Amino acid sequence: MADLASLFHPKSVAIVGASKTDGEIGNILVKNVLASGFKGSIFPINSRESEIEGLPCFASLLEVPEKMDLGVICVPAKHCPEVVDECGRVGIKTIVVITPGFKEIGPEGLELEKKLLAVCHKYGIRLVGPNCVGLMDTHIPISASYSAVFPLKGDIAFISQSGAMLVSIMDWSKSIGLGFSRVISLGNKADLDEAAFIEALADDPFTRVILCYIEDVQNGRHFLDVAARTSRKKPVIVLKSGTSQAGALAASSHTGALAGSDLAYQIAFKQAGILRANSMTELFDLALSFSYQPIPQGDRVAVVTNAGGPGIVTADAIENSGLTMARFEKETLEVLRSHLPAEGNIYNPVDVLGDARADRYAAALESVLKDPNVDSIVVLVCPTAVTDPENIAQKIIDLHGKYPDKPIFSAYMGGGVLAEGAKKLAQARIPVFTFPEPTVYSIAGMVSYARTSAAGAEIGEIELDDIDQNRVKAIFYDVFRDGRSVLLGSEAAAVAKAYGISAVPVKLSVTPEEAVALSEEIGYPVVLKVASPKIMHKTDVGGVKIGLHNSEEVRNGFIEIMENVQRYLPNVIPHGIEVGKMMPKGTELIIGMTRDVQFGPLIAFGLGGVYVNLLKDVSFRLARGLTRQEIQAMITETKAYTLLRGYRGEKPSDMFSIIDMVSRVARLVLDFPEISEMDINPLLAYTDGYSALDIKITINI
Amino acid sequence: MADLASLFHPKSVAIVGASKTDGEIGNILVKNVLASGFKGSIFPINSRESEIEGLPCFASLLEVPEKMDLGVICVPAKHCPEVVDECGRVGIKTIVVITPGFKEIGPEGLELEKKLLAVCHKYGIRLVGPNCVGLMDTHIPISASYSAVFPLKGDIAFISQSGAMLVSIMDWSKSIGLGFSRVISLGNKADLDEAAFIEALADDPFTRVILCYIEDVQNGRHFLDVAARTSRKKPVIVLKSGTSQAGALAASSHTGALAGSDLAYQIAFKQAGILRANSMTELFDLALSFSYQPIPQGDRVAVVTNAGGPGIVTADAIENSGLTMARFEKETLEVLRSHLPAEGNIYNPVDVLGDARADRYAAALESVLKDPNVDSIVVLVCPTAVTDPENIAQKIIDLHGKYPDKPIFSAYMGGGVLAEGAKKLAQARIPVFTFPEPTVYSIAGMVSYARTSAAGAEIGEIELDDIDQNRVKAIFYDVFRDGRSVLLGSEAAAVAKAYGISAVPVKLSVTPEEAVALSEEIGYPVVLKVASPKIMHKTDVGGVKIGLHNSEEVRNGFIEIMENVQRYLPNVIPHGIEVGKMMPKGTELIIGMTRDVQFGPLIAFGLGGVYVNLLKDVSFRLARGLTRQEIQAMITETKAYTLLRGYRGEKPSDMFSIIDMVSRVARLVLDFPEISEMDINPLLAYTDGYSALDIKITINI
Repeated sequence: MADLASLFHPKSVAIVGASKTDGEIGNILVKNVLASGFKGSIFPINSRESEIEGLPCFASLLEVPEKMDLGVICVPAKHCPEVVDECGRVGIKTIVVITPGFKEIGPEGLELEKKLLAVCHKYGIRLVGPNCVGLMDTHIPISASYSAVFPLKGDIAFISQSGAMLVSIMDWSKSIGLGFSRVISLGNKADLDEAAFIEALADDPFTRVILCYIEDVQNGRHFLDVAARTSRKKPVIVLKSGTSQAGALAASSHTGALAGSDLAYQIAFKQAGILRANSMTELFDLALSFSYQPIPQGDRVAVVTNAGGPGIVTADAIENSGLTMARFEKETLEVLRSHLPAEGNIYNPVDVLGDARADRYAAALESVLKDPNVDSIVVLVCPTAVTDPENIAQKIIDLHGKYPDKPIFSAYMGGGVLAEGAKKLAQARIPVFTFPEPTVYSIAGMVSYARTSAAGAEIGEIELDDIDQNRVKAIFYDVFRDGRSVLLGSEAAAVAKAYGISAVPVKLSVTPEEAVALSEEIGYPVVLKVASPKIMHKTDVGGVKIGLHNSEEVRNGFIEIMENVQRYLPNVIPHGIEVGKMMPKGTELIIGMTRDVQFGPLIAFGLGGVYVNLLKDVSFRLARGLTRQEIQAMITETKAYTLLRGYRGEKPSDMFSIIDMVSRVARLVLDFPEISEMDINPLLAYTDGYSALDIKITINI
Repeated sequence: MADLASLFHPKSVAIVGASKTDGEIGNILVKNVLASGFKGSIFPINSRESEIEGLPCFASLLEVPEKMDLGVICVPAKHCPEVVDECGRVGIKTIVVITPGFKEIGPEGLELEKKLLAVCHKYGIRLVGPNCVGLMDTHIPISASYSAVFPLKGDIAFISQSGAMLVSIMDWSKSIGLGFSRVISLGNKADLDEAAFIEALADDPFTRVILCYIEDVQNGRHFLDVAARTSRKKPVIVLKSGTSQAGALAASSHTGALAGSDLAYQIAFKQAGILRANSMTELFDLALSFSYQPIPQGDRVAVVTNAGGPGIVTADAIENSGLTMARFEKETLEVLRSHLPAEGNIYNPVDVLGDARADRYAAALESVLKDPNVDSIVVLVCPTAVTDPENIAQKIIDLHGKYPDKPIFSAYMGGGVLAEGAKKLAQARIPVFTFPEPTVYSIAGMVSYARTSAAGAEIGEIELDDIDQNRVKAIFYDVFRDGRSVLLGSEAAAVAKAYGISAVPVKLSVTPEEAVALSEEIGYPVVLKVASPKIMHKTDVGGVKIGLHNSEEVRNGFIEIMENVQRYLPNVIPHGIEVGKMMPKGTELIIGMTRDVQFGPLIAFGLGGVYVNLLKDVSFRLARGLTRQEIQAMITETKAYTLLRGYRGEKPSDMFSIIDMVSRVARLVLDFPEISEMDINPLLAYTDGYSALDIKITINI
C-alpha cells in the first residue's frame, strides 16, 4: 500500500503523449483529468505543442519545473521505455502506460514489455498496464484514463483485466446510479497486478467492497495470501473467466495468459474467502447489495408481500439458496395479526394482501424488522388498484433508517406503474429488482461471505516435527540415479514412513528365499506383488498373490509370479517381488495430489478402491496453508465421511489419525516440489488408525 | 378446444355485477372491455342502473334480448350460483367468475365452490376461476379482466395461477415492449385448469409459445398427456413454484393446493417435453427469445464481439450451458481475415476490435451467418470511442432480415450510450440484454426444447402379453386375508415371476426337513432367511445363513436361525424360513417404485447394494407411458450404466433383459395401484440375464 500512495493520492500528474487533436487518446486523457475535477497540477507533455486544453504544455518531462507523482503515458509503444527512463530521472514513482503493442501482440511485444519493466525496476517505478484503460478515483478525484464515462462516487472498487468491460460497466453503472470508489484497468499486468491492488484496497477507507474481473492470476500464492487477508476485512468478489475449455482457449488467444485449471481457482477462491460470481449479473447484483446494505447476521429471511404467488416464488428461492425462512416470535405474530385483515398471512411469507396501502406495509415491515429471528428482509410489491409504490418506498426507506442494521431488499414487480417508487428506493440505497429471485441470491451471497469471513479464511501451517526429509531425499536420489521417475512400492512406502504416514510394510525381495525371510519378519499372512514401474496393471499379468500363510506358499508364489510375468511380458525384467503385510478389511479411501501451475499442489480426499473414477466422491484443497480444521471440512464434504462416521451400525473410523495423515501428505508434497503426482489408493481406515495400502509417487527431475 | 370457442372468440359479453362507481371491480371490468377495443356487444347487468359507461344496463341476464357468449361475473360470492343458473337459462356457455371467497377461504368457501360447479355442470357451462383476474386477448381483442394494463399484441400466451403475478407481468412487459396473445388468470381452477388452456392454445395460430406460472397441477395424468402433445407443436415453459419445503408450505396456506413432491414434477415436466424455468427472469427471457427468434437448428454458437473479455465470458457461458462454440468453415475464416485487422480474432469468438464501426460488424456477422457450422449467433457490443450502437443495431436487423432462419441474440453492454441502439433492436424483435450470459441461457433453453421436441416427448405403452394378473391378485388376496401389507420374500418373488421378472427362486419352509427338500429342488448352494414381515434387518438377529452346500448344513442352518430369532426377538413368531438359490456375483442394481399423488408411480433405477442410500446413484421416470427408449435413457443417466457397459475390462451386462425387466416393473405397479412401495435391491445383472435377489412389496388395501 505504501508503495502505491502516489497512485492513489497523486498531487500532480504528467500526461506524456498529450495531444491537441480531438478524439485522440492523448487529448481524451487531458480532458478526462480536467473533467474529473482533479485538484493537483496537470502537466501535458508534447514537444510539438505549447498549450493543450488551456494547460501549458512541456516538450519533455525533464523540462517540468515541479515534482510529479503520477505519469500517464500514451506515446507509441517503442518510445515507452525511453519515456519511462525520463520518468525515473525526474523522480516519478508511479506510471500508467495506456499504450498497447506489448505482450498481447506476440514475442516482439513481449520483448518490449520486458525492456519497459527493466527500466521501471532500475528506478523503482511501479507500473499500471501497459495496454490498459487507466485508473479512475472518485474520491481524490481523478480520471487517469480514456474511459468516456467517469463513474458516480461510491464505495465499490472495480479491478478489471478487460478494458472494454470496464468501460461498459462505467456506462451501465451510471444508468442505474451505482457508484465506485476506485476503478482500475489492469492491462497486461506487467508489474502491478490484481493482488497488488486488492492489497492496496484492503485498508482503503473509501472502499467497502472489492470487485475483480480477471482472466488469470499472476502469482497464485501471493494472490491467495493477499485475498485471504483482505477478505477478512471486506468482501472480495471475483468474476474469473476462462473457466471452460472454450473460454480458456479464448483467454489465451486474447491476453496470452496461461489460464490455470478452473478447479484450482475454485478451491483457491474458496480457501481465500473470495466470493465467486458466476455471471456479470451476479457480480454487480452482489456489488450493489454489499455497497447498499449491511451484511446479514444470519441466514433467516423474512418476506413481506402483497401477493401470494410471488411470496411462494421467493420462499422457494430462499430454500433453494440454502437460506432459511425466518420463524417469527409469538409477539411478532400477534402484532401482525392486529394489523392485517383475517385473510392476510401472518406467517412468513407475510401477505399484507392486494389492498394494502403504505401504512399496512409499514406496520408489517416494522414488526418483522424488530423480530430477533429475522436477519434480513425481502419486500415484494405488486401493482394493484390501491398500491401506492412511492409511499411504500418511503416507508421502507424510513424504516431502514430506523433499523439500519437489518438489511432490506425489494422487488418492485412491474414496469411503468412502479418505476418512480423503484427509483426512490435505489436512490436511498435499498436494492430494488424487478423479480424476487435476485434479492434472494444477493442475500445468499452476503450470508456466504459472512460465514466465510467469520470462519476466518485462515491460511495456517501445521507443525510437524517427526519428519525425516533426508530419508526422502536419499530415496529420491536413488530413484534418479536409477533413471526412473516412478517410485517402486517399497520406495513409496519408505517415503511415506519418513513423513509419519502409516504405510503397509512393503519390502523388496529378489529371490524366493529373501521373500520368505521378509515374510517371517513382517508376519503372515502376506501379499506378493511384482515390482516394476513398467507394469501398470499387476493383477492382469498374474503379478499378485494375496493371503499367503506360510513359507511354502510364499516360495511358490514368488516363482509363479515370475513365471507369469515372463509369459505375459517377456521383455520386462522386474526389479523383484514386493512382500507386503496382508491387511484386514477397512474403509477404502483415496488421498491424492495433483499440481496446479498457479496454486501448487492440490490434495484430493474421497472414497477409494477400484470404483474411484466411477464414484468421483472426491473433495479438494490446496496443500498450502491447509489447517486441521480445513482437512476436517474437506473430509466432511465427501460420502466417504458418512462411511467413516460409521455407516449402518458399523464402528466409526479413527478420524484423528486420518486428519493427521492428510496433513502429512500435504507437508510432503509442499516440501518436495519434485513430486509431480501422488496417489494413495486404497488407504484403509480402521477404528484404530489406518494403513496406506498402495502408494504411487511420481517425481520430476 | 371446441368447448372453449366462446371463451376465445366471444361475439358478445355480459358483465354481471357491473357498476357505475369508479374504482369498483364492476366498473373497471366494463371500462376494460371497452378500452380493449372489443368489437362485439357488451351487456352490463345491474338491477339498480339503467346505463353504465354509456352502455344500456339490464336488470338481469334474463332481460337481455340477444344471445350472449361469455359471462363475466363479479357479484358477491354467495350470489354467484344463482347468477350462473341464469347464465345457463339464457344459454351462456362460458363464464369467468372474478369474485373471491371460495375454496381459498376455507371449508365454507369450498362448499360454495362445489355448488357453483354443480350449476355449471347442470348447464354444461365451462368456468374460469373463481377468484381470478380474468382473461385478456390481444387478437380478438378483449379484456375480460380487471388488470389495469392491457398488454401489447404479441404471440406469447401466459397462464397464471397467481393473479398478482399476472398483473405485475402485464405492467412490466409493456415497459420492455413484450407482447402477448392471450393472458389467462386461473384463479381456483374449479373447472378449467392449466391443462385445458394448454390444450386450447396448442393449435391457436396467434400463440407461438405458452408460458405457465403454476403452484400445483389439478390432474397429473391429463396434464402430462396434454403437455406432451402440445410441446411437440410449440414450446410450453413452466415456472412451478412451491418446489421447496418452505415454498410448498406457503403454497398450501395460500391456495389450499396440495403440492406434489417436486421430484415428480421435475420428471413429469421432462417426460412431457416441458421447459422448466427456474426463476421469473428465466421464464421471461425464454418467452422473449422464443417469441422473437427462430429455434436454433443445433447447439453451435458463434460470438461476434468488439472486446476480448466479454467474448471470453460468453464462451464460458456457452460451454457451461452445454452448448458448443461453433468452429468455422475455412471460407468463413478467409472472409473474416479479409475484413478484420490483423490484431482481430477470426476464430470464435470473433473479435472485430474496439475500433470496429457498423460496416466491420456487418461483414463479420454476415460471414458467420452464412457458415453452415453456426446454429445461432451472439453479438456483443461494448461502448468505445468509435462504437456506433444504432448503426450496428441497424446492420444486425438488416442481416437478420436477410438470414431469418438463424437466431441472433445481442448484449449491449452499457447504459446511456447504448440505450437507443438497444431499443431499436428490441423493437425489431432481436433479443437484447445488458450482459452476455442471458443470451446464452436463452439459446440453451431453446436448444433444449428443440432436442426434446425432436425426440418426440412420446408417451408410449409397452406391450407385454406374458403376464399373469390373476396370479398376482391371488397372492395379494392371501396377503390381505393374512392381515398383512408387506409381502413375504417368497410371495414377492412369485409376484415378480407372474410378471416375467426373473427372481431368485425363493420358497417358504416351516420345518428343517421341508427346507432340505426345497434346497434339493432348487439346487445347492442355497441361502436361508427368516421369513417375517416384522423383522426388518434379518442379518442383525442372526436370521440369515448363506452358502449352504448340503442337507446337513441346511438342517443345522434352519435350527440355528430359529434359535437366534427366538433369543433376539422372543415375541416374534416367524412365518418360517425362506430357502433361496445362492446366486453368483453380479452388478448390484436397485429398481424401486414410489407413488406420487399427482403423477402416479415413479420408477427408480440405479446402483444397488448396501450403499444405495449413500451413493444416491438413482434416476427416475414416471411409470406411465414409459417407453423402452426412455428406460434406456434412464439407465444411461446413472453411474450404474458405466458398470453395466463393462467397467475396467469386465464384460458388459445384458442390457436388453434389464430394460425388459424395468418395463415389467412399470407395468406391474401400473396394473396394481394397491402396490404402495416396491424395491428390488439388489438385482444382480449378469452378462446373460439378471436375477432379482431381494424384492420388497408393500400393498395398501
